[in-house]
Amino acid sequence: MDVKAAVAWEAGKPLSIETVQLEGPREGEVLVEMKATGLCHTDLFTLSGDDPEGLFPAILGHEGAGVVVDVGPGVTSLQKGDHVIPLYTPECRECDYCTSHKTNLCQKIRVTQGRGLMPDGTSRFSMNGKKIHHYMGCSTFASHSVVPEIALAKIRKDAPFDKVCYIGCGVTTGVGAVIFTAGVKPGDNVVVFGLGGIGLNVIQGARIAGADKIVGVDINPARKELAEKFGMTHFVNPKEVEGDLVPYLVDLTDGGADYSFECIGNVNVMRQALECCHKGWGTSVIIGVAGAGQEISTRPFQLVTGRVWKGSAFGGARGRTDVPKIVDWYMEGKINIDDLITHTMPLEDINKGFDLMKKGESIRSVVIY
Amino acid sequence: MDVKAAVAWEAGKPLSIETVQLEGPREGEVLVEMKATGLCHTDLFTLSGDDPEGLFPAILGHEGAGVVVDVGPGVTSLQKGDHVIPLYTPECRECDYCTSHKTNLCQKIRVTQGRGLMPDGTSRFSMNGKKIHHYMGCSTFASHSVVPEIALAKIRKDAPFDKVCYIGCGVTTGVGAVIFTAGVKPGDNVVVFGLGGIGLNVIQGARIAGADKIVGVDINPARKELAEKFGMTHFVNPKEVEGDLVPYLVDLTDGGADYSFECIGNVNVMRQALECCHKGWGTSVIIGVAGAGQEISTRPFQLVTGRVWKGSAFGGARGRTDVPKIVDWYMEGKINIDDLITHTMPLEDINKGFDLMKKGESIRSVVIY
Repeated sequence: MDVKAAVAWEAGKPLSIETVQLEGPREGEVLVEMKATGLCHTDLFTLSGDDPEGLFPAILGHEGAGVVVDVGPGVTSLQKGDHVIPLYTPECRECDYCTSHKTNLCQKIRVTQGRGLMPDGTSRFSMNGKKIHHYMGCSTFASHSVVPEIALAKIRKDAPFDKVCYIGCGVTTGVGAVIFTAGVKPGDNVVVFGLGGIGLNVIQGARIAGADKIVGVDINPARKELAEKFGMTHFVNPKEVEGDLVPYLVDLTDGGADYSFECIGNVNVMRQALECCHKGWGTSVIIGVAGAGQEISTRPFQLVTGRVWKGSAFGGARGRTDVPKIVDWYMEGKINIDDLITHTMPLEDINKGFDLMKKGESIRSVVIY
Repeated sequence: MDVKAAVAWEAGKPLSIETVQLEGPREGEVLVEMKATGLCHTDLFTLSGDDPEGLFPAILGHEGAGVVVDVGPGVTSLQKGDHVIPLYTPECRECDYCTSHKTNLCQKIRVTQGRGLMPDGTSRFSMNGKKIHHYMGCSTFASHSVVPEIALAKIRKDAPFDKVCYIGCGVTTGVGAVIFTAGVKPGDNVVVFGLGGIGLNVIQGARIAGADKIVGVDINPARKELAEKFGMTHFVNPKEVEGDLVPYLVDLTDGGADYSFECIGNVNVMRQALECCHKGWGTSVIIGVAGAGQEISTRPFQLVTGRVWKGSAFGGARGRTDVPKIVDWYMEGKINIDDLITHTMPLEDINKGFDLMKKGESIRSVVIY
């Protein structure tokens, strides 16, 4: 079938709106009509060419929501008309990782997904016979996409696509890192580095978890008001702190953060995030994606005296299990998504959305099909 | 009173056997007649002058066992005749750290201990009126020492001093890191870097915890036989591995270690220990003490894909609570200490013990008073 898509033909070039060909779903696959998709920094990172694993041409996008319009043979958990969110981290419930119950990093289709292909090693997208790669197993920058059954979370039908699409990445990454990866508990003090789309979701995750002090750290004072709305109790602008930031934060949190979160992708900030943690037990969670080849460092004494350094991917969420719950939380008013979606646009204007992102003028832009 | 002690007059010089003066116990303090003490790398590190926090003159030693001969005012948990092990990590059960139940790093007397003094800010040791510093709150290289009540574990009276003194540091540091810090469970695969006094205790800790594969890594093939006796199932000599060590270990442990332990103090090995952990959940525990100013590094991707980096001090053990249990384990034959104590000597020969350590000829030397 012919579908409309924003194609990334090569690194560093704007996306190009095209009519491309999409093959129907094969064994274990599902055809999804996309209703909305968020624009994420990761899409921009890949488009820029800085992502060493980026493949071109490709249909980017990994933060979508839509409706099942067809299912391939063997699909049992979904049927036509179901509302779904595509998952770049699938949940097969069968592989060693899923059955370990210790991680959300399902490995069932990792290799082909990393190669921009469906699990059988081929692509469903093409244009005039030329193969176009899938992206993160989702390719939500297309009016329709084919996605493996294990990479789709079935969600309630009354949830608005143009809001809950954000749960496909940013919301879950932030809220999940607090709840699933860190396990923040009532009374904990939390420090969040970077108050963008992820950081604000970490803030609201900490609020839901009952944290006491929720300290937001950002060099952009314009973030303060929104972050406070999401639950931030203290704002720190590193540019306005006299002396070193780390001891300032340790003092502000009565001995250090019980949990800190790095939501920027800056390896120097990752070190600060670890070192502002409480001696004896403070845990720092890396969420941000650092540039290729960059490394984190610290003195091992920081760990020997009880701090823990870990990371989080997709918020530690098991997509098919946890994403529907987070949709419920949104519908119940437990989490705020509306205020984070600062811009919407049709697919034709997708490059304008990336311009807003580059200029720091948006929290989240959403394409509505 | 006059007591016999090995005094460290200055960095880099051998210890000197002297008769020094020891004041009796003040409020909350206990006079202990030392019966035996182990010689630890940390003593040597401080004596060498490389320890930036080392103070001189001092009476070193922190791995002792002895008998209470007098108690100061207010001491309630100990009385004359009790058998005790001095604790360089005390357990006051009152400070914010103890009551957090999240760490063993009691802070009650940390500041004065770090300054080589008793909690009231003075020293009990002197020689001809010249003050001599305490060391790690223990100073076990003396026939008698004064130790705070909260830094003494009361142990059963049938336990042999010349064996259980080793529980005051090395045994607990190794066994505890597995059981208290890491929480190794039956079926886990474990990799241990460095098969010295600490590493061998990690090995037996892993055996007690029911680990499946217990891989020991050391460049000294002479360690293999003893490590196997302690529970090691696979020996890896990095000098004999073709190609990179990390993928070799990942392969050997079916995808990576569930837990790895660095027992050397080498920051490059600490990185290998992290990176040989299983994607998704593998946890690396740093036990070894790195040289001053040295740093650990890795790509943040290692953490974002689920590995956890942490450390352990005194095996995560709460001294007054856990050390008596470990003494029980020794008495019940659950752990082996006898085979680790390769040399014993009187205090007069203590420098010979450090010579054996430097040459790598001993696992543990014990001074018997």
